[in-house]
Amino acid sequence: MINSHFLRNIPTKSDIKDAHLRIKEAIHKTPVLESSAINKEMGCRIYFKCENLQKVGAFKYRGASNALLSLNKEDLKNGVATHSSGNHAAALALAARSSGARAYIVMPETAPEIKKKVVASYGAEIIYCAPTLEARETTLEGVIAKTGAIFVHPYNNYTIIAGQATAAKEIIEEIGNSDFLLAPVGGGGLLSGSVLSAEYFGDKISVIGCEPKGADDAFRSIRDGVIYPSVNPKTISDGLLTSLGDKTFNILRDRLHLIMTVEEHSIITAMRMIWERMKIIIEPSSAVPFAAIMENREVFTGKTVSVILSGGNVDLESLPWSTANR
Amino acid sequence: MINSHFLRNIPTKSDIKDAHLRIKEAIHKTPVLESSAINKEMGCRIYFKCENLQKVGAFKYRGASNALLSLNKEDLKNGVATHSSGNHAAALALAARSSGARAYIVMPETAPEIKKKVVASYGAEIIYCAPTLEARETTLEGVIAKTGAIFVHPYNNYTIIAGQATAAKEIIEEIGNSDFLLAPVGGGGLLSGSVLSAEYFGDKISVIGCEPKGADDAFRSIRDGVIYPSVNPKTISDGLLTSLGDKTFNILRDRLHLIMTVEEHSIITAMRMIWERMKIIIEPSSAVPFAAIMENREVFTGKTVSVILSGGNVDLESLPWSTANR
Repeated sequence: MINSHFLRNIPTKSDIKDAHLRIKEAIHKTPVLESSAINKEMGCRIYFKCENLQKVGAFKYRGASNALLSLNKEDLKNGVATHSSGNHAAALALAARSSGARAYIVMPETAPEIKKKVVASYGAEIIYCAPTLEARETTLEGVIAKTGAIFVHPYNNYTIIAGQATAAKEIIEEIGNSDFLLAPVGGGGLLSGSVLSAEYFGDKISVIGCEPKGADDAFRSIRDGVIYPSVNPKTISDGLLTSLGDKTFNILRDRLHLIMTVEEHSIITAMRMIWERMKIIIEPSSAVPFAAIMENREVFTGKTVSVILSGGNVDLESLPWSTANR
Repeated sequence: MINSHFLRNIPTKSDIKDAHLRIKEAIHKTPVLESSAINKEMGCRIYFKCENLQKVGAFKYRGASNALLSLNKEDLKNGVATHSSGNHAAALALAARSSGARAYIVMPETAPEIKKKVVASYGAEIIYCAPTLEARETTLEGVIAKTGAIFVHPYNNYTIIAGQATAAKEIIEEIGNSDFLLAPVGGGGLLSGSVLSAEYFGDKISVIGCEPKGADDAFRSIRDGVIYPSVNPKTISDGLLTSLGDKTFNILRDRLHLIMTVEEHSIITAMRMIWERMKIIIEPSSAVPFAAIMENREVFTGKTVSVILSGGNVDLESLPWSTANR
């Protein structure tokens, strides 16, 4: 079900400004942090936009809030629905609760207990399904048919994209233009929002998408000009397993500077370095852009680089460098 | 050796203002973060001042910077010295390097390798000694006699205290007055600076020192009006093992609202909750004030509470909740 209150076209500059005004009171204006030690070691100046410190621990709350706050009471009477086992599920659940709306979240029954608990704690109704894309979609269709809830796609939705774009907008407002702006790419919601904000609010900022080599469907899709599905992705970055959608692809195709792909060991090293030096908790997906800087130092030497740290939801019992996992 | 450029009396309002101006470019203005989830669970509104995100990962960099920047070139020609295996050692080493001065750090040979590495990485000279207070002091005296370096005490120094006071000053400037301001107490540098800033820059802010029950020498010292040494302290909070000095005691005795002591299990629970909910890394000492809120909810219900998160230096290989430590 397409709702008339969602954007129908690629977000314009004023769509993103409107989104920002709409969600400003609902979200955290997250800090931009710097580490002299990291700058020194990398030979460039890096500004980290800490969306791991966003509500629900991820930038996803921006898009979800924009979606919920774009709908009126009548739209919301049957609630909202999505399928996700990740940060979008939690974000939609909390945004719905804040708007007094019901949320139906289709999750694979194999999802980690901690994720189920988080979504349930925000008052959402969880509908379990088999852990396949087909089961997710069929189950979601059933839920929507039965409840009349509005489907809020995790990324292939222009209203969601306009919400995610506000993170890059805030960076530019706080630190001005940087030579580069790096964001991870999974479904492309954050990245496509970032290229739009760089274009509208910045000047000559080259936006680079960053992706694990083991899940490089976006890299291949942009290179070849077709959307490849994400088949059997192999990466610790559990937020980056999905493929681009037609809307995110459309935005990225003409505007993106480059996609860099990185090795798994770089992701773990980058993640640990940010934990140790910056004292903030980021999830593996968030470490991918910094891993790209580590793997391509010559590109960034002497430059200013903005990096969006996308989220901080990790299982503290099972860290990638802990002895138990070696 | 007492240096004439260090403060000789309890810092005045203008001493703290001067300290802030002096160090402003050298330090991070750390963010004040809030968590709606934690506020809801605790029934009060908590502002966390993130000194774990300060340079060297601890508020100690404020005091060390103020000390180094209070000395002139002639004072610094023989360098500075201290004994510490903790955050003050790293802070003094980095502050000295930033001022182009040598730093001599006396450390027990049993100090964790990671702490030795950090101090060495800032270019300080490490002098090892036996792991007793007596050996530390004798070794330090020898170093000072030989080098002519200026001793910078970790907390019992009014210039250090004026530097630490700037953290509370920044909170008050950012969020205004809160009903309570909580800080951990070890030697009392941060706490005594906080009570001064609350008095000078705030209005009716009750400052509460927070201490592990297993290292409650400050609690007993304030209660009985004498400085008790910290004998065989037993706590995971490795930053809070020291006893008050005469200078910190003098400040705290007449001005402190209260000291709350907390159980070890509360410290671990509090630490984990801040990691999980706020996505920031804090060391056990930093969790002590939040543990005090958890143990005394009725005191804080409906109130505004500022909490100084003192530092974030932990060994990521050995977390208190990891299976290996159970």
